[in-house]
Amino acid sequence: MTDSSPAEATETTEAASATEAARAGEPVAVLGAGAMGSALAEALLAAGHPVTVWNRTPARTEPLVARGARAAPGVAAASVGAGIVVVCVTDPAAARSVLDEVPVDEGQVVVNLTTGSPEDAREAAALAERRGMTYLDGAIQAGAHLIGTPDALLMYAGREQVFRAHRETLLAFGEDTRYLGEDHGLPALFDLALLAFAYELWISYLHTLALIDTEGLTAGSFAGAARKIADDIVGHLDSIAAEVDDGVYSPDSFGRLQDHEAVADHLVAMRAARGVDAGQLRLVRDLIRGRIAEGRGEQGFSGIFEGIRVPRTGR
Amino acid sequence: MTDSSPAEATETTEAASATEAARAGEPVAVLGAGAMGSALAEALLAAGHPVTVWNRTPARTEPLVARGARAAPGVAAASVGAGIVVVCVTDPAAARSVLDEVPVDEGQVVVNLTTGSPEDAREAAALAERRGMTYLDGAIQAGAHLIGTPDALLMYAGREQVFRAHRETLLAFGEDTRYLGEDHGLPALFDLALLAFAYELWISYLHTLALIDTEGLTAGSFAGAARKIADDIVGHLDSIAAEVDDGVYSPDSFGRLQDHEAVADHLVAMRAARGVDAGQLRLVRDLIRGRIAEGRGEQGFSGIFEGIRVPRTGR
Repeated sequence: MTDSSPAEATETTEAASATEAARAGEPVAVLGAGAMGSALAEALLAAGHPVTVWNRTPARTEPLVARGARAAPGVAAASVGAGIVVVCVTDPAAARSVLDEVPVDEGQVVVNLTTGSPEDAREAAALAERRGMTYLDGAIQAGAHLIGTPDALLMYAGREQVFRAHRETLLAFGEDTRYLGEDHGLPALFDLALLAFAYELWISYLHTLALIDTEGLTAGSFAGAARKIADDIVGHLDSIAAEVDDGVYSPDSFGRLQDHEAVADHLVAMRAARGVDAGQLRLVRDLIRGRIAEGRGEQGFSGIFEGIRVPRTGR
Repeated sequence: MTDSSPAEATETTEAASATEAARAGEPVAVLGAGAMGSALAEALLAAGHPVTVWNRTPARTEPLVARGARAAPGVAAASVGAGIVVVCVTDPAAARSVLDEVPVDEGQVVVNLTTGSPEDAREAAALAERRGMTYLDGAIQAGAHLIGTPDALLMYAGREQVFRAHRETLLAFGEDTRYLGEDHGLPALFDLALLAFAYELWISYLHTLALIDTEGLTAGSFAGAARKIADDIVGHLDSIAAEVDDGVYSPDSFGRLQDHEAVADHLVAMRAARGVDAGQLRLVRDLIRGRIAEGRGEQGFSGIFEGIRVPRTGR
């Protein structure tokens, strides 16, 4: 900023104003007014966009109309004239049926935010491509109540140029908006992978609380200590990812695999003796043993990844 | 502070100085000079305590002597005159053998920091009690390199008055020093429960990275999103504990169990199709189904705890 001449500063301001105007002005159609579709439409209205909504059951659009949206009687009527057509319906089959009804307009981008698998996303993208649409697939890692907040994570894939051109409008759904790449399956893959991770963290914690409970202790007495160790591991997620990418597993922060074998065995026994499921810990122990048997006991804990990674030939 | 009279301020300063003097002056014996015992002795030396060390293999004490510790030729010689005798040896059997050799002095507290199970800790405490010792059991949730830092978690159990009397000295090992209660088994229980939680978080993340890897993506591309969702769950550990303690499982932050059934099933299928272990996710799915079958599908995700908790009759 200190190097900017007055002329440059003016240019920057003008460019920002132009972008702001484009963002605020772009008309958007939202197809689907369930909990998530309605939250998306509300966020767009709050950002100043003209919003047209459509829903299979028209009554669902009434609260949005009360907030300033226009309701359309059908998919085609809702889509015409919009810069972005957002599809957010019940399931991938419903999304395909809606995509079949959207009139093709190359100057318009269709953004499918319907939850599904990577295969569903790729199938929808192939359909859109056959029809000649400009298309992005996306996934939302957040409850509807978090739309528009920094806690929502929005992920998109498709042609990068298309994403960049509409990014300003899409930011209305949340500032943590990420472009993952050309492969339309990636947002769904990340979304489901994150959800599985969330489920596993949650059940691990509940198993730990169940163990504590067998000694008659409250969960609250343990929560502070659990948060401390969980924060520590979450602080290492980036470095663990780097270890996995490099295939070099450092024992510096958590010791060597060979030091963990007896501990893991002990943890399995402790859980089992108290009647708390130890399946995941047995897997940890067996992976540690496997790595030691392969002569890799000097590696750090993340070395068990080599026993988890799916060989390319097996894919 | 604004309400303190000068007299009160002086008293506070004097009390703090007296405590500081007591903390800095208390002589401590450290029995066991492995990686952890040596780190404990170093932290005590750094805090200004006279430290006497003993180790089964005497050469291990040499670096500590170079830093100002006194080496003793035996357990008894090391212990006499110490305000605190810290026991930190290889395993619980070694700790029991050391406890048998410490001369009984009721004015002295023996603090056993040897890693073991809750049962080991209770057995050692019973032995100390039979011998008439003043005794605390403790556990360290940290690598030796973290001793003396805020990242170390130190947990103690035994008579609260004994802990309070020596707390200032024990703070040399780390400011996050917690008293858990009278039951000597609790520090080991918490320590092992935390370790199991750490193992499970870590392997969950590695499974997630393995899934991402099957699509040819780097772990690094996914780490930021993973950190976001992990941070979110860690931020909920206290409220999840409260739900478990109250037996009331709110659907507000993560939806109802009945909304998760199909998703969990989908996640299992996605992992299985790509050759990544789905055992823990199958368990999540089955627990969700069990709760729904019991008519509790309206509960939040933590409601699966009721299927995890060990019935009191089964203990």
